[in-house]
Amino acid sequence: MAQIAFADRVASAVAERESQILLGLDPDPLHLWDVAADAFGGDGSPAERAARAVAVHCRALIEAAAPACVGIKPQLACFERLGGPGYGALVEVIATAHDAGLFVLADAKRGDVAVTATAYAQALAGSVATPAGEVTALGADAFTANPLLGIDALEPLIATGAGVFLLVRTSNPGAADVMDLELARGGPLWERLAELVDELGTPRECGLADVGAVVGATEPEHLARARELMPHAIFLLPGIGAQGGRVEDLAPAFAPGPAAGLVAASRSIAGAHAQNGHGPAAAARAEAERLRELAWALT
Amino acid sequence: MAQIAFADRVASAVAERESQILLGLDPDPLHLWDVAADAFGGDGSPAERAARAVAVHCRALIEAAAPACVGIKPQLACFERLGGPGYGALVEVIATAHDAGLFVLADAKRGDVAVTATAYAQALAGSVATPAGEVTALGADAFTANPLLGIDALEPLIATGAGVFLLVRTSNPGAADVMDLELARGGPLWERLAELVDELGTPRECGLADVGAVVGATEPEHLARARELMPHAIFLLPGIGAQGGRVEDLAPAFAPGPAAGLVAASRSIAGAHAQNGHGPAAAARAEAERLRELAWALT
Repeated sequence: MAQIAFADRVASAVAERESQILLGLDPDPLHLWDVAADAFGGDGSPAERAARAVAVHCRALIEAAAPACVGIKPQLACFERLGGPGYGALVEVIATAHDAGLFVLADAKRGDVAVTATAYAQALAGSVATPAGEVTALGADAFTANPLLGIDALEPLIATGAGVFLLVRTSNPGAADVMDLELARGGPLWERLAELVDELGTPRECGLADVGAVVGATEPEHLARARELMPHAIFLLPGIGAQGGRVEDLAPAFAPGPAAGLVAASRSIAGAHAQNGHGPAAAARAEAERLRELAWALT
Repeated sequence: MAQIAFADRVASAVAERESQILLGLDPDPLHLWDVAADAFGGDGSPAERAARAVAVHCRALIEAAAPACVGIKPQLACFERLGGPGYGALVEVIATAHDAGLFVLADAKRGDVAVTATAYAQALAGSVATPAGEVTALGADAFTANPLLGIDALEPLIATGAGVFLLVRTSNPGAADVMDLELARGGPLWERLAELVDELGTPRECGLADVGAVVGATEPEHLARARELMPHAIFLLPGIGAQGGRVEDLAPAFAPGPAAGLVAASRSIAGAHAQNGHGPAAAARAEAERLRELAWALT
Protein backbone atom coordinates (compact mmCIF):
# COMPACT_ATOMS: atom_id res chain seq x y z
CA MET A 1 0.00 0.00 0.00
CA ALA A 2 1.54 3.27 -1.07
CA GLN A 3 1.60 5.69 1.83
CA ILE A 4 0.34 9.19 1.14
CA ALA A 5 3.10 11.72 1.87
CA PHE A 6 2.78 13.74 5.07
CA ALA A 7 2.54 17.06 3.23
CA ASP A 8 -0.25 15.77 1.01
CA ARG A 9 -2.17 14.45 4.00
CA VAL A 10 -1.87 17.83 5.72
CA ALA A 11 -2.97 19.65 2.57
CA SER A 12 -6.08 17.45 2.33
CA ALA A 13 -6.89 17.83 6.01
CA VAL A 14 -6.50 21.61 5.95
CA ALA A 15 -8.74 21.90 2.90
CA GLU A 16 -11.38 19.60 4.35
CA ARG A 17 -11.47 21.10 7.83
CA GLU A 18 -10.82 24.67 6.65
CA SER A 19 -8.42 24.99 9.54
CA GLN A 20 -4.69 25.51 10.06
CA ILE A 21 -4.96 25.49 13.83
CA LEU A 22 -2.95 23.09 15.98
CA LEU A 23 -4.22 22.64 19.50
CA GLY A 24 -1.13 22.90 21.70
CA LEU A 25 -1.19 20.59 24.72
CA ASP A 26 1.15 21.56 27.54
CA PRO A 27 -0.77 20.46 30.62
CA ASP A 28 0.33 21.79 34.01
CA PRO A 29 -0.99 19.47 36.76
CA LEU A 30 -1.79 22.50 38.95
CA HIS A 31 -3.90 24.20 36.28
CA LEU A 32 -6.10 21.56 34.72
CA TRP A 33 -9.75 21.96 33.93
CA ASP A 34 -12.18 21.11 36.75
CA VAL A 35 -13.31 18.01 34.86
CA ALA A 36 -9.94 16.45 35.74
CA ALA A 37 -10.14 17.10 39.49
CA ASP A 38 -11.62 13.71 40.45
CA ALA A 39 -8.83 11.83 38.68
CA PHE A 40 -6.29 13.06 41.24
CA GLY A 41 -8.03 10.89 43.85
CA GLY A 42 -8.18 7.13 43.82
CA ASP A 43 -5.44 4.54 43.63
CA GLY A 44 -1.90 4.84 42.46
CA SER A 45 1.27 6.86 42.95
CA PRO A 46 1.18 10.66 42.66
CA ALA A 47 2.61 10.30 39.15
CA GLU A 48 -0.11 7.83 38.15
CA ARG A 49 -2.89 9.98 39.53
CA ALA A 50 -1.51 13.18 38.02
CA ALA A 51 -1.06 11.46 34.66
CA ARG A 52 -4.65 10.23 34.78
CA ALA A 53 -5.83 13.78 35.45
CA VAL A 54 -3.69 15.14 32.62
CA ALA A 55 -5.20 12.59 30.24
CA VAL A 56 -8.76 13.56 31.28
CA HIS A 57 -7.96 17.26 30.85
CA CYS A 58 -6.40 16.77 27.43
CA ARG A 59 -9.29 14.58 26.27
CA ALA A 60 -11.80 17.26 27.28
CA LEU A 61 -9.72 19.93 25.59
CA ILE A 62 -9.49 17.92 22.37
CA GLU A 63 -13.23 17.23 22.38
CA ALA A 64 -13.94 20.93 22.88
CA ALA A 65 -11.53 22.37 20.32
CA ALA A 66 -11.37 19.61 17.69
CA PRO A 67 -14.02 21.05 15.36
CA ALA A 68 -11.88 24.16 14.81
CA CYS A 69 -8.51 22.37 14.56
CA VAL A 70 -6.57 20.26 12.08
CA GLY A 71 -4.13 18.70 14.55
CA ILE A 72 -2.69 18.66 18.05
CA LYS A 73 0.78 19.65 19.17
CA PRO A 74 1.55 17.94 22.49
CA GLN A 75 4.55 19.35 24.32
CA LEU A 76 6.49 16.22 25.31
CA ALA A 77 8.22 17.84 28.30
CA CYS A 78 4.87 18.29 30.05
CA PHE A 79 4.14 14.56 29.88
CA GLU A 80 7.71 13.39 30.56
CA ARG A 81 7.78 15.24 33.87
CA LEU A 82 5.20 12.70 35.08
CA GLY A 83 7.55 9.80 34.22
CA GLY A 84 6.31 6.50 32.82
CA PRO A 85 2.66 7.26 33.64
CA GLY A 86 2.99 10.63 31.91
CA TYR A 87 4.33 8.94 28.82
CA GLY A 88 1.37 6.56 28.98
CA ALA A 89 -1.01 9.51 29.21
CA LEU A 90 0.57 10.98 26.09
CA VAL A 91 -0.08 7.74 24.21
CA GLU A 92 -3.76 7.94 25.25
CA VAL A 93 -3.98 11.58 24.21
CA ILE A 94 -2.54 10.76 20.79
CA ALA A 95 -5.14 8.02 20.32
CA THR A 96 -7.90 10.46 21.29
CA ALA A 97 -6.67 12.96 18.71
CA HIS A 98 -6.46 10.35 15.98
CA ASP A 99 -10.00 9.20 16.81
CA ALA A 100 -11.14 12.82 16.42
CA GLY A 101 -9.59 12.98 12.93
CA LEU A 102 -6.71 15.21 14.02
CA PHE A 103 -3.09 14.65 13.11
CA VAL A 104 -0.41 14.67 15.80
CA LEU A 105 2.69 16.83 15.70
CA ALA A 106 4.86 15.82 18.68
CA ASP A 107 6.70 18.89 19.93
CA ALA A 108 9.92 17.15 20.93
CA LYS A 109 12.73 19.30 19.49
CA ARG A 110 14.99 16.26 19.40
CA GLY A 111 18.40 16.19 17.81
CA ASP A 112 21.23 13.71 18.21
CA VAL A 113 23.92 11.83 16.29
CA ALA A 114 22.62 9.43 13.64
CA VAL A 115 22.51 6.23 15.69
CA THR A 116 20.55 7.98 18.43
CA ALA A 117 18.43 9.96 15.97
CA THR A 118 17.33 6.58 14.61
CA ALA A 119 16.13 5.64 18.10
CA TYR A 120 14.28 8.96 18.44
CA ALA A 121 12.69 8.37 15.04
CA GLN A 122 11.49 4.98 16.29
CA ALA A 123 10.15 6.55 19.50
CA LEU A 124 8.33 9.45 17.86
CA ALA A 125 6.97 8.19 14.58
CA GLY A 126 8.18 4.67 13.92
CA SER A 127 8.59 1.41 15.78
CA VAL A 128 11.38 -0.75 17.12
CA ALA A 129 11.84 -4.49 16.64
CA THR A 130 12.19 -6.55 19.82
CA PRO A 131 12.15 -10.31 20.49
CA ALA A 132 8.75 -9.73 22.13
CA GLY A 133 7.37 -8.15 18.94
CA GLU A 134 7.37 -4.75 17.27
CA VAL A 135 6.84 -1.79 19.63
CA THR A 136 5.29 1.50 18.53
CA ALA A 137 5.79 4.13 21.22
CA LEU A 138 4.02 7.34 20.14
CA GLY A 139 2.99 6.89 16.54
CA ALA A 140 2.98 10.63 15.84
CA ASP A 141 2.42 11.93 12.32
CA ALA A 142 5.08 14.61 12.64
CA PHE A 143 7.50 16.07 15.16
CA THR A 144 9.81 19.01 15.75
CA ALA A 145 13.60 18.57 15.62
CA ASN A 146 16.73 20.60 16.24
CA PRO A 147 19.14 20.96 13.28
CA LEU A 148 22.29 21.93 15.24
CA LEU A 149 23.97 18.53 14.71
CA GLY A 150 23.86 18.72 10.93
CA ILE A 151 22.52 16.72 8.03
CA ASP A 152 23.64 13.20 8.95
CA ALA A 153 21.82 13.61 12.27
CA LEU A 154 18.63 14.67 10.49
CA GLU A 155 18.52 11.97 7.84
CA PRO A 156 17.17 9.17 10.11
CA LEU A 157 14.39 11.52 11.25
CA ILE A 158 13.40 12.42 7.69
CA ALA A 159 13.60 8.76 6.63
CA THR A 160 10.59 8.00 8.84
CA GLY A 161 8.33 9.63 6.28
CA ALA A 162 6.80 11.65 9.10
CA GLY A 163 6.66 15.42 8.94
CA VAL A 164 9.86 16.84 10.42
CA PHE A 165 9.73 20.49 11.49
CA LEU A 166 13.21 21.89 11.99
CA LEU A 167 13.86 24.82 14.29
CA VAL A 168 14.77 27.78 12.11
CA ARG A 169 13.90 30.88 14.15
CA THR A 170 12.07 30.33 17.42
CA SER A 171 9.67 32.65 19.22
CA ASN A 172 11.62 33.30 22.44
CA PRO A 173 13.59 36.52 23.13
CA GLY A 174 16.86 34.57 23.51
CA ALA A 175 16.52 33.13 20.00
CA ALA A 176 18.65 36.05 18.86
CA ASP A 177 21.65 34.83 20.91
CA VAL A 178 22.53 32.03 18.50
CA MET A 179 20.05 31.91 15.61
CA ASP A 180 20.66 35.56 14.70
CA LEU A 181 24.48 35.32 14.73
CA GLU A 182 25.82 36.85 11.53
CA LEU A 183 27.70 34.40 9.33
CA ALA A 184 30.90 35.23 7.44
CA ARG A 185 29.12 34.45 4.15
CA GLY A 186 26.46 37.08 5.03
CA GLY A 187 23.08 36.75 6.71
CA PRO A 188 22.18 35.31 10.09
CA LEU A 189 22.56 31.66 11.06
CA TRP A 190 18.81 31.09 10.85
CA GLU A 191 18.88 31.79 7.13
CA ARG A 192 21.39 28.95 6.71
CA LEU A 193 19.07 26.72 8.74
CA ALA A 194 16.26 27.77 6.42
CA GLU A 195 18.36 26.70 3.43
CA LEU A 196 18.92 23.32 5.06
CA VAL A 197 15.15 22.89 5.37
CA ASP A 198 14.78 23.71 1.71
CA GLU A 199 17.60 21.35 0.68
CA LEU A 200 16.29 18.44 2.74
CA GLY A 201 12.66 18.65 1.63
CA THR A 202 11.16 17.42 -1.64
CA PRO A 203 7.90 18.98 -2.81
CA ARG A 204 5.06 16.46 -2.85
CA GLU A 205 1.95 16.43 -5.05
CA CYS A 206 0.48 19.42 -3.16
CA GLY A 207 3.66 21.44 -3.75
CA LEU A 208 4.69 21.33 -0.09
CA ALA A 209 7.44 19.19 1.43
CA ASP A 210 7.52 16.81 4.40
CA VAL A 211 10.38 18.81 5.93
CA GLY A 212 8.94 21.91 7.55
CA ALA A 213 10.23 24.81 9.61
CA VAL A 214 9.50 26.25 13.02
CA VAL A 215 9.30 30.02 12.58
CA GLY A 216 8.12 31.96 15.60
CA ALA A 217 5.03 34.07 15.11
CA THR A 218 6.47 36.70 17.44
CA GLU A 219 8.85 38.11 14.82
CA PRO A 220 6.68 38.65 11.75
CA GLU A 221 9.43 40.62 10.01
CA HIS A 222 11.26 37.31 9.50
CA LEU A 223 8.35 35.57 7.82
CA ALA A 224 8.63 37.02 4.33
CA ARG A 225 12.37 36.29 4.18
CA ALA A 226 11.81 32.79 5.60
CA ARG A 227 9.19 32.10 2.91
CA GLU A 228 11.59 33.29 0.21
CA LEU A 229 14.24 30.83 1.44
CA MET A 230 11.80 27.94 1.98
CA PRO A 231 9.19 28.12 -0.79
CA HIS A 232 7.99 24.53 -0.23
CA ALA A 233 8.15 24.21 3.56
CA ILE A 234 5.16 24.02 5.85
CA PHE A 235 5.74 26.58 8.61
CA LEU A 236 4.88 25.68 12.17
CA LEU A 237 4.04 29.02 13.74
CA PRO A 238 4.18 29.03 17.54
CA GLY A 239 4.00 32.09 19.73
CA ILE A 240 0.40 33.20 19.08
CA GLY A 241 -1.47 34.51 22.12
CA ALA A 242 0.42 34.08 25.40
CA GLN A 243 3.77 34.80 23.72
CA GLY A 244 2.51 37.90 21.95
CA GLY A 245 2.26 36.85 18.29
CA ARG A 246 -0.80 37.86 16.21
CA VAL A 247 -2.46 35.66 13.58
CA GLU A 248 -3.08 38.74 11.46
CA ASP A 249 0.68 39.10 10.86
CA LEU A 250 1.18 35.63 9.43
CA ALA A 251 0.11 36.17 5.81
CA PRO A 252 3.57 35.52 4.24
CA ALA A 253 3.54 32.03 5.72
CA PHE A 254 0.47 31.13 3.66
CA ALA A 255 1.77 32.39 0.32
CA PRO A 256 2.23 28.88 -1.18
CA GLY A 257 -1.24 27.77 -0.12
CA PRO A 258 -3.60 27.23 2.79
CA ALA A 259 -1.64 24.30 4.24
CA ALA A 260 1.70 26.14 4.17
CA GLY A 261 1.26 27.45 7.70
CA LEU A 262 0.14 25.72 10.88
CA VAL A 263 -0.77 28.03 13.76
CA ALA A 264 -0.12 26.50 17.17
CA ALA A 265 -1.95 27.85 20.20
CA SER A 266 -2.12 26.24 23.60
CA ARG A 267 -2.49 28.49 26.64
CA SER A 268 -4.74 30.94 24.80
CA ILE A 269 -7.18 28.10 24.02
CA ALA A 270 -6.98 26.05 27.23
CA GLY A 271 -7.15 29.20 29.36
CA ALA A 272 -9.71 31.14 27.33
CA HIS A 273 -12.31 30.90 30.12
CA ALA A 274 -10.19 33.19 32.29
CA GLN A 275 -10.85 35.93 29.71
CA ASN A 276 -14.36 35.38 28.51
CA GLY A 277 -16.17 33.95 31.51
CA HIS A 278 -17.72 30.89 29.88
CA GLY A 279 -16.99 27.33 31.00
CA PRO A 280 -13.56 26.09 29.88
CA ALA A 281 -14.84 23.86 27.06
CA ALA A 282 -17.13 26.47 25.52
CA ALA A 283 -14.46 29.15 25.88
CA ALA A 284 -11.79 26.90 24.32
CA ARG A 285 -14.02 26.06 21.39
CA ALA A 286 -14.86 29.71 20.82
CA GLU A 287 -11.21 30.79 20.97
CA ALA A 288 -10.06 27.99 18.65
CA GLU A 289 -12.84 28.95 16.24
CA ARG A 290 -11.84 32.62 16.45
CA LEU A 291 -8.22 31.72 15.58
CA ARG A 292 -9.39 29.39 12.81
CA GLU A 293 -11.39 32.15 11.17
CA LEU A 294 -8.56 34.67 11.47
CA ALA A 295 -6.03 32.29 9.92
CA TRP A 296 -8.37 31.00 7.21
CA ALA A 297 -9.10 34.57 6.18
CA LEU A 298 -5.42 35.00 5.31
CA THR A 299 -5.43 32.26 2.68
CA MET B 1 20.98 21.43 54.27
CA ALA B 2 23.32 23.15 51.84
CA GLN B 3 23.56 21.15 48.66
CA ILE B 4 27.06 20.42 47.40
CA ALA B 5 27.49 21.82 43.89
CA PHE B 6 27.40 19.33 41.02
CA ALA B 7 30.97 20.10 39.93
CA ASP B 8 32.29 19.56 43.46
CA ARG B 9 30.44 16.25 43.75
CA VAL B 10 31.94 15.08 40.46
CA ALA B 11 35.42 16.20 41.52
CA SER B 12 35.13 14.18 44.76
CA ALA B 13 33.76 11.13 42.98
CA VAL B 14 36.47 11.18 40.31
CA ALA B 15 39.21 11.48 42.96
CA GLU B 16 37.73 8.73 45.10
CA ARG B 17 37.04 6.26 42.30
CA GLU B 18 40.09 7.25 40.24
CA SER B 19 37.85 7.13 37.22
CA GLN B 20 36.51 9.54 34.61
CA ILE B 21 34.58 6.86 32.76
CA LEU B 22 30.85 7.14 32.12
CA LEU B 23 29.12 3.93 31.22
CA GLY B 24 26.93 4.75 28.23
CA LEU B 25 23.61 2.90 28.15
CA ASP B 26 21.93 2.74 24.77
CA PRO B 27 20.21 -0.65 24.87
CA ASP B 28 18.96 -2.15 21.61
CA PRO B 29 16.26 -4.77 22.37
CA LEU B 30 17.67 -7.03 19.63
CA HIS B 31 21.21 -6.99 21.07
CA LEU B 32 20.92 -7.41 24.82
CA TRP B 33 23.08 -9.68 26.92
CA ASP B 34 21.89 -13.27 27.26
CA VAL B 35 21.01 -12.66 30.91
CA ALA B 36 18.04 -10.60 29.67
CA ALA B 37 16.61 -13.25 27.36
CA ASP B 38 14.14 -14.74 29.86
CA ALA B 39 12.59 -11.35 30.54
CA PHE B 40 11.13 -11.22 27.03
CA GLY B 41 8.80 -14.08 27.99
CA GLY B 42 6.06 -13.89 30.57
CA ASP B 43 3.14 -11.50 30.90
CA GLY B 44 2.60 -8.09 29.43
CA SER B 45 2.61 -6.21 26.17
CA PRO B 46 5.65 -6.36 23.86
CA ALA B 47 6.69 -2.95 25.22
CA GLU B 48 6.45 -4.13 28.82
CA ARG B 49 8.41 -7.30 28.15
CA ALA B 50 11.08 -5.52 26.11
CA ALA B 51 11.39 -2.83 28.79
CA ARG B 52 11.83 -5.51 31.45
CA ALA B 53 14.59 -7.11 29.40
CA VAL B 54 16.28 -3.75 28.86
CA ALA B 55 16.24 -3.13 32.61
CA VAL B 56 17.79 -6.55 33.32
CA HIS B 57 20.48 -5.95 30.69
CA CYS B 58 21.34 -2.48 32.01
CA ARG B 59 21.44 -3.72 35.60
CA ALA B 60 23.89 -6.48 34.64
CA LEU B 61 25.99 -4.02 32.68
CA ILE B 62 26.09 -1.56 35.58
CA GLU B 63 27.04 -4.33 38.04
CA ALA B 64 29.82 -5.48 35.72
CA ALA B 65 31.34 -2.10 34.85
CA ALA B 66 30.61 -0.03 37.98
CA PRO B 67 33.98 -0.59 39.70
CA ALA B 68 35.76 1.13 36.80
CA CYS B 69 33.25 3.95 36.31
CA VAL B 70 32.22 7.20 37.98
CA GLY B 71 28.77 7.52 36.40
CA ILE B 72 26.32 6.31 33.80
CA LYS B 73 25.09 8.10 30.70
CA PRO B 74 21.74 6.63 29.64
CA GLN B 75 20.63 7.58 26.15
CA LEU B 76 17.01 8.61 26.62
CA ALA B 77 15.96 7.82 23.06
CA CYS B 78 16.67 4.13 23.61
CA PHE B 79 14.24 3.98 26.53
CA GLU B 80 11.61 6.29 25.04
CA ARG B 81 11.20 4.04 22.02
CA LEU B 82 9.65 1.50 24.43
CA GLY B 83 7.03 4.04 25.53
CA GLY B 84 5.79 4.30 29.12
CA PRO B 85 7.33 0.95 30.12
CA GLY B 86 10.66 2.07 28.65
CA TYR B 87 10.51 5.25 30.70
CA GLY B 88 9.80 3.11 33.75
CA ALA B 89 12.83 0.94 32.96
CA LEU B 90 14.97 4.06 32.81
CA VAL B 91 13.80 5.05 36.29
CA GLU B 92 14.85 1.60 37.57
CA VAL B 93 18.22 1.84 35.85
CA ILE B 94 18.86 5.22 37.44
CA ALA B 95 18.07 3.80 40.88
CA THR B 96 20.47 0.90 40.23
CA ALA B 97 23.24 3.33 39.30
CA HIS B 98 22.65 5.49 42.35
CA ASP B 99 22.74 2.38 44.57
CA ALA B 100 26.10 1.50 43.00
CA GLY B 101 27.48 4.93 43.92
CA LEU B 102 27.45 6.22 40.35
CA PHE B 103 26.08 9.57 39.27
CA VAL B 104 23.62 9.82 36.40
CA LEU B 105 24.07 12.05 33.37
CA ALA B 106 20.89 11.77 31.30
CA ASP B 107 21.78 12.11 27.63
CA ALA B 108 18.70 14.01 26.53
CA LYS B 109 19.98 16.90 24.38
CA ARG B 110 16.85 18.87 25.23
CA GLY B 111 16.32 22.48 24.30
CA ASP B 112 13.14 24.54 24.20
CA VAL B 113 11.70 27.97 25.02
CA ALA B 114 11.82 28.90 28.70
CA VAL B 115 8.37 27.73 29.78
CA THR B 116 8.99 24.32 28.21
CA ALA B 117 12.61 24.19 29.36
CA THR B 118 11.22 24.52 32.88
CA ALA B 119 9.14 21.40 32.29
CA TYR B 120 12.17 19.53 30.91
CA ALA B 121 14.17 20.61 33.96
CA GLN B 122 11.43 19.15 36.15
CA ALA B 123 11.42 15.93 34.12
CA LEU B 124 15.17 15.42 34.07
CA ALA B 125 16.52 16.64 37.36
CA GLY B 126 13.76 18.25 39.38
CA SER B 127 10.17 17.59 40.30
CA VAL B 128 6.73 18.95 39.54
CA ALA B 129 4.00 19.90 42.00
CA THR B 130 0.64 18.23 41.48
CA PRO B 131 -2.54 18.05 43.60
CA ALA B 132 -1.66 14.37 44.17
CA GLY B 133 1.78 15.30 45.55
CA GLU B 134 5.22 16.16 44.21
CA VAL B 135 6.38 13.99 41.29
CA THR B 136 10.05 13.30 40.55
CA ALA B 137 10.38 11.70 37.12
CA LEU B 138 14.05 10.83 36.54
CA GLY B 139 16.07 12.47 39.31
CA ALA B 140 19.24 12.63 37.22
CA ASP B 141 22.31 14.44 38.54
CA ALA B 142 23.12 16.00 35.19
CA PHE B 143 21.92 16.06 31.60
CA THR B 144 22.90 17.18 28.13
CA ALA B 145 21.16 20.13 26.46
CA ASN B 146 21.11 21.93 23.12
CA PRO B 147 22.02 25.65 23.16
CA LEU B 148 20.48 26.66 19.81
CA LEU B 149 17.55 28.51 21.44
CA GLY B 150 19.77 30.89 23.39
CA ILE B 151 20.32 31.97 26.97
CA ASP B 152 16.75 32.46 28.18
CA ALA B 153 16.00 28.88 27.12
CA LEU B 154 18.99 27.56 29.07
CA GLU B 155 18.41 29.44 32.32
CA PRO B 156 15.63 27.15 33.65
CA LEU B 157 17.88 24.14 33.01
CA ILE B 158 20.83 25.67 34.83
CA ALA B 159 18.60 26.79 37.70
CA THR B 160 18.02 23.15 38.64
CA GLY B 161 21.51 23.00 40.13
CA ALA B 162 22.10 19.85 38.11
CA GLY B 163 25.08 19.58 35.79
CA VAL B 164 24.11 20.89 32.35
CA PHE B 165 26.31 19.80 29.46
CA LEU B 166 25.72 21.98 26.41
CA LEU B 167 26.44 20.74 22.92
CA VAL B 168 29.47 22.64 21.65
CA ARG B 169 31.06 20.41 18.99
CA THR B 170 29.62 16.92 18.59
CA SER B 171 31.34 13.77 17.37
CA ASN B 172 29.35 13.05 14.19
CA PRO B 173 30.63 13.83 10.67
CA GLY B 174 27.68 16.19 10.00
CA ALA B 175 28.61 18.35 12.99
CA ALA B 176 30.57 20.49 10.54
CA ASP B 177 27.38 21.47 8.65
CA VAL B 178 26.22 23.92 11.31
CA MET B 179 28.66 23.98 14.25
CA ASP B 180 31.64 24.77 12.02
CA LEU B 181 29.94 27.61 10.13
CA GLU B 182 32.27 30.60 10.11
CA LEU B 183 30.87 33.66 11.88
CA ALA B 184 31.25 37.23 10.66
CA ARG B 185 33.12 38.11 13.87
CA GLY B 186 35.65 35.33 13.07
CA GLY B 187 35.86 31.72 14.20
CA PRO B 188 33.31 28.94 13.83
CA LEU B 189 29.89 28.87 15.50
CA TRP B 190 31.04 26.24 18.00
CA GLU B 191 33.52 28.69 19.48
CA ARG B 192 30.65 31.06 20.23
CA LEU B 193 28.77 28.16 21.85
CA ALA B 194 31.91 27.50 23.90
CA GLU B 195 31.88 31.11 25.06
CA LEU B 196 28.26 30.71 26.12
CA VAL B 197 29.24 27.71 28.24
CA ASP B 198 31.97 29.79 29.86
CA GLU B 199 29.65 32.76 30.46
CA LEU B 200 26.88 30.64 31.98
CA GLY B 201 29.05 28.62 34.36
CA THR B 202 30.46 29.73 37.71
CA PRO B 203 33.55 27.95 39.04
CA ARG B 204 32.78 26.02 42.21
CA GLU B 205 35.16 25.13 45.07
CA CYS B 206 36.96 22.58 42.89
CA GLY B 207 37.54 25.20 40.19
CA LEU B 208 35.11 23.59 37.76
CA ALA B 209 31.60 24.81 36.89
CA ASP B 210 28.20 23.08 36.83
CA VAL B 211 27.77 24.08 33.17
CA GLY B 212 29.81 21.70 31.05
CA ALA B 213 30.36 21.08 27.36
CA VAL B 214 29.91 18.19 24.98
CA VAL B 215 33.05 18.05 22.84
CA GLY B 216 33.37 15.03 20.59
CA ALA B 217 36.44 12.87 21.11
CA THR B 218 36.59 12.22 17.37
CA GLU B 219 38.11 15.64 16.57
CA PRO B 220 41.02 15.99 19.01
CA GLU B 221 42.31 19.05 17.16
CA HIS B 222 39.38 20.99 18.65
CA LEU B 223 40.13 20.05 22.23
CA ALA B 224 42.97 22.45 22.98
CA ARG B 225 41.03 25.40 21.56
CA ALA B 226 37.88 24.31 23.40
CA ARG B 227 39.81 24.17 26.67
CA GLU B 228 41.19 27.66 26.06
CA LEU B 229 37.67 29.02 25.61
CA MET B 230 36.16 27.05 28.52
CA PRO B 231 38.79 26.89 31.26
CA HIS B 232 36.28 25.88 33.95
CA ALA B 233 33.96 23.54 32.08
CA ILE B 234 33.77 19.81 32.57
CA PHE B 235 33.99 18.25 29.12
CA LEU B 236 31.74 15.34 28.26
CA LEU B 237 33.73 13.42 25.68
CA PRO B 238 31.66 11.02 23.57
CA GLY B 239 32.89 9.20 20.49
CA ILE B 240 35.48 6.86 22.03
CA GLY B 241 35.58 3.36 20.54
CA ALA B 242 32.78 2.63 18.08
CA GLN B 243 32.88 6.19 16.70
CA GLY B 244 36.66 6.19 16.26
CA GLY B 245 37.92 8.47 19.05
CA ARG B 246 40.99 7.48 21.13
CA VAL B 247 41.37 8.13 24.86
CA GLU B 248 45.07 8.83 24.30
CA ASP B 249 44.19 12.01 22.37
CA LEU B 250 42.14 13.60 25.15
CA ALA B 251 44.91 15.14 27.30
CA PRO B 252 43.89 18.81 26.71
CA ALA B 253 40.49 18.08 28.24
CA PHE B 254 42.11 17.21 31.56
CA ALA B 255 44.33 20.29 31.82
CA PRO B 256 42.30 21.88 34.70
CA GLY B 257 42.28 18.66 36.72
CA PRO B 258 41.24 15.02 36.76
CA ALA B 259 37.50 15.77 36.87
CA ALA B 260 37.62 18.16 33.91
CA GLY B 261 36.89 15.40 31.42
CA LEU B 262 34.33 12.61 31.46
CA VAL B 263 34.88 9.87 28.90
CA ALA B 264 31.65 8.23 27.73
CA ALA B 265 31.78 4.76 26.21
CA SER B 266 28.82 2.51 25.54
CA ARG B 267 29.02 0.08 22.64
CA SER B 268 32.74 -0.60 23.21
CA ILE B 269 31.97 -1.70 26.80
CA ALA B 270 28.64 -3.51 26.31
CA GLY B 271 29.95 -5.28 23.21
CA ALA B 272 33.50 -6.00 24.39
CA HIS B 273 32.85 -9.77 24.45
CA ALA B 274 32.58 -9.79 20.64
CA GLN B 275 36.26 -8.79 20.56
CA ASN B 276 37.87 -10.59 23.45
CA GLY B 277 35.92 -13.84 23.74
CA HIS B 278 35.09 -13.67 27.46
CA GLY B 279 31.54 -13.60 28.78
CA PRO B 280 29.83 -10.19 28.38
CA ALA B 281 30.18 -9.13 32.03
CA ALA B 282 33.86 -10.03 32.37
CA ALA B 283 34.63 -8.47 29.00
CA ALA B 284 32.72 -5.27 29.87
CA ARG B 285 34.51 -4.94 33.18
CA ALA B 286 37.91 -5.48 31.52
CA GLU B 287 37.19 -2.91 28.79
CA ALA B 288 35.88 -0.32 31.26
CA GLU B 289 38.98 -0.89 33.40
CA ARG B 290 41.23 -0.55 30.34
CA LEU B 291 39.61 2.78 29.46
CA ARG B 292 39.78 3.91 33.10
CA GLU B 293 43.53 3.29 33.24
CA LEU B 294 44.14 5.03 29.89
CA ALA B 295 42.20 8.13 30.95
CA TRP B 296 43.56 8.25 34.48
CA ALA B 297 47.12 8.10 33.07
CA LEU B 298 46.44 11.42 31.28
CA THR B 299 45.80 13.33 34.50
